Amino acid sequence: MTLKTKRSENYPAWYQCVVADGQMAENAASPGCMVIKPWGYGIWERIRDLMDEEFRETDHENAYFPMFIPISFFRKEAEHVEGFAKEMAVVTHSRLAQKDGTLQPDGELDEPLIVRPTSETIIADSFSKWVKSYRDLPVLINQWANVVRWEMRPRLFLRTREFLWQEGHTAHASAAEAEEETKRMLEVYRKTSEEFLAMPVIQGVKPEYDKFPGAVNTYCIEAMMQDGKALQAGTSHFLGQNFAKSQNISFINKDNKPEFAYTTSWGVSTRLIGGLIMTHADDEGMVVPPRVAPYQVVLVPVIKKTEDEEKVMAYIHEVALELKKQMPFGEKIRVKIDKRNKQAVDKFWDWTRMGAPVICEIGPRDVESQGMMVRERLNISQKEIVAKADFISSIDARLQKIQNELFARAKKRMDQNIRTDITTPEEFKAYFANANEWIEDGKVGKVAFVKGKWCGDDATEEILKEMKISIRCLPLKQSGTKGKCLLTGKDATLDVIYARSY
Amino acid sequence: MTLKTKRSENYPAWYQCVVADGQMAENAASPGCMVIKPWGYGIWERIRDLMDEEFRETDHENAYFPMFIPISFFRKEAEHVEGFAKEMAVVTHSRLAQKDGTLQPDGELDEPLIVRPTSETIIADSFSKWVKSYRDLPVLINQWANVVRWEMRPRLFLRTREFLWQEGHTAHASAAEAEEETKRMLEVYRKTSEEFLAMPVIQGVKPEYDKFPGAVNTYCIEAMMQDGKALQAGTSHFLGQNFAKSQNISFINKDNKPEFAYTTSWGVSTRLIGGLIMTHADDEGMVVPPRVAPYQVVLVPVIKKTEDEEKVMAYIHEVALELKKQMPFGEKIRVKIDKRNKQAVDKFWDWTRMGAPVICEIGPRDVESQGMMVRERLNISQKEIVAKADFISSIDARLQKIQNELFARAKKRMDQNIRTDITTPEEFKAYFANANEWIEDGKVGKVAFVKGKWCGDDATEEILKEMKISIRCLPLKQSGTKGKCLLTGKDATLDVIYARSY
Repeated sequence: MTLKTKRSENYPAWYQCVVADGQMAENAASPGCMVIKPWGYGIWERIRDLMDEEFRETDHENAYFPMFIPISFFRKEAEHVEGFAKEMAVVTHSRLAQKDGTLQPDGELDEPLIVRPTSETIIADSFSKWVKSYRDLPVLINQWANVVRWEMRPRLFLRTREFLWQEGHTAHASAAEAEEETKRMLEVYRKTSEEFLAMPVIQGVKPEYDKFPGAVNTYCIEAMMQDGKALQAGTSHFLGQNFAKSQNISFINKDNKPEFAYTTSWGVSTRLIGGLIMTHADDEGMVVPPRVAPYQVVLVPVIKKTEDEEKVMAYIHEVALELKKQMPFGEKIRVKIDKRNKQAVDKFWDWTRMGAPVICEIGPRDVESQGMMVRERLNISQKEIVAKADFISSIDARLQKIQNELFARAKKRMDQNIRTDITTPEEFKAYFANANEWIEDGKVGKVAFVKGKWCGDDATEEILKEMKISIRCLPLKQSGTKGKCLLTGKDATLDVIYARSY
Repeated sequence: MTLKTKRSENYPAWYQCVVADGQMAENAASPGCMVIKPWGYGIWERIRDLMDEEFRETDHENAYFPMFIPISFFRKEAEHVEGFAKEMAVVTHSRLAQKDGTLQPDGELDEPLIVRPTSETIIADSFSKWVKSYRDLPVLINQWANVVRWEMRPRLFLRTREFLWQEGHTAHASAAEAEEETKRMLEVYRKTSEEFLAMPVIQGVKPEYDKFPGAVNTYCIEAMMQDGKALQAGTSHFLGQNFAKSQNISFINKDNKPEFAYTTSWGVSTRLIGGLIMTHADDEGMVVPPRVAPYQVVLVPVIKKTEDEEKVMAYIHEVALELKKQMPFGEKIRVKIDKRNKQAVDKFWDWTRMGAPVICEIGPRDVESQGMMVRERLNISQKEIVAKADFISSIDARLQKIQNELFARAKKRMDQNIRTDITTPEEFKAYFANANEWIEDGKVGKVAFVKGKWCGDDATEEILKEMKISIRCLPLKQSGTKGKCLLTGKDATLDVIYARSY
């Protein structure tokens, strides 16, 4: 039973179906905002916990900074405010009062406050108090928070006015150390995407004109969605001394001289869940990789006669208890017994739509045979009758296998769809004029990313805008070969990824 | 080495010292807001994780709702908005632009948005879409979020304009079931306070005039601070059908008739950390109970000669590795090796100020004797030389003992300071006219709470205001005996707790 809209029929409508039927999120009454439902939020919590482990291992600590930033802070960093000014929620009043017969804003503030679009300025202000000497460095902080950017074309998970994210902020005694940190966190993002979300990415650096406002360098990971578009899945910025200067983070260095600190910032957001959907979901709905699934195994009782209920439920609880002794991926397993007052077949479809990795249906005959019917979401049409003992002892291997298959499938798709044989601006133009299709599994069609040369001229941004494509990144691995820029035909050595994007 | 200000000298100044020197939090550049530093935030994360476990066991699921609430939602629930209107942050603009030579708010919104002071209205709006039939009930949701109330006298952790909290929101098919839920979550709050924070509380219900705006009943837990004042540490509200009616949460009941749902809401906030401080901290600084300590054991290397470094650090890592095999309270132990570029004695004082439960100093002689110097924060002046093997094998018992001692000490203090022998309005008035002192350990002085009778008349609120005290709650355990109201002298049977409060 496929979704109302198939992926191949109407990709954006299919995406909405997956989000809705997969119980991931819905539009909120507040314009442009979303309600993240328990299943979607559960995925976010798994991402948070796995990333927190990575942050701890790289000596970062979580903290919390205010979400309101005085407007004066933005007046200090011209380039930064320029990048965000057009999409900021501004708090101007501190109460409501009856006026003209209705409730109205009242109590105007002396200084308007901005709801953080990102926290470089306010966190730098704290760092300026914490850092006095090189002995106080590095400062390695991460924050989990909500942020606001006033998007005009909101889309669930991909672009919402309020979204959740983590933002790392660090300060260092040297540029080299800060740049090393920027790359270290990019690697954490690669690991998060590839090993936890099973979403392959290309690591690279943004062109000068596409950097984070106020950054010296912006590193990024870029993923390929199933429609061939690119999704920027995470960014890590080397900020040089820009924010240190505007917020005065200075320290006495080893030579006993005052110096401005070198800072970094890096973030990933609930947008990752949009990427997760567009990497793994299919025409039956969402597919969640085991590492981030709120429940990895769902047990659905199949009870037709009331007299069977007790024995089936006792057996299911036994299965759950024994499963809970297993530690797939070295973590507590996440098992759900679906006790809702609903038909088993409807429960099965709910979990299929939500993309639970393993769904087991268990009825009276399974109790007798000490087995169960097992289906993996990745191959939902295949039923398997498995002995209870075998199922339990192999759950770790099964979940690992699913995780690996999901990554391999997505990696193959990405690798198949990066074209490297386009060498002239003419071919390039002709190619992107029609490149709207998505291919997989050997079907021939137009591919999605073009890896080719770029002359490095920022003025080429205009050509890209006209073609409605962008340079996603300069991959970290550069070939160093010579060729012709695909935009200008000039001599060029830089390898870049050209694509349509979200 | 005591703090700059002792508790007995100036209680509010002492509190500020504990917060500052304990690395808990600091005032932010945004007026009335706080920066929660890693140690304070780590405590909050432990509270979150422990409570999440309780929420899961009672079948609640986490989700996330938007922080912006359209002003029209507040216009619908008169009593609710009345309670919050005076302290709301209002977003009126969606961008900044240059005007008169400076950055100003621009892009005025058609409908102003309120930054959530609490989320009953916006969550009820979602529930109205999710609930159609009695089969969809109950809906059991929790949210971890930031909220804003425009406090005019902010104080770190106790009253800040932005704070972090969890807010549970549930909908049920009957009033009885909703009221049962309200009490179930109050019990979760009691457990959180007493078993995790080692902070004893009194469970009760608020007088009619002091209910949550829009509630039928407000249940609460009240704790006693070291200055004898009460702190409301958590509330659980039975909302009846009030919000269901204003936001239209209706369902088809078992008799096939439409009915409004019965809802509840309940919350605890970062205020709990203020309570934690004022329950356990002393003149040396913060004292954190092991169950919520970001690190339970801190290992401080004592290295005077560089040649000792390698051997001491190798030994410390060995201790940490072996410790990490232990599971105090059935959880992963939290151990920190303090590698900072600082004198050992300064590190010792840092951890004392921060209140780490167990601090071990380890130098070259300890390596030779296979031991270490152990100090427990609760008795920081007592040194103990312990063999490594003994220390490791007994860490569970040691942390459990500290946790129990902290609770017992606080419970004894609370029990000693609830006076039950005041029976007339005259005695009562005279008593509170001078009751500003705090006593402990048998020192005689004025006590803090008075447990006595109340006639139940809401008009007595005025008398209380004049005396600058309040009825904290009607304890759940009522004696049923007859007596005289301590405010009016009238016949009364209700037992209440009278106190000064935060």
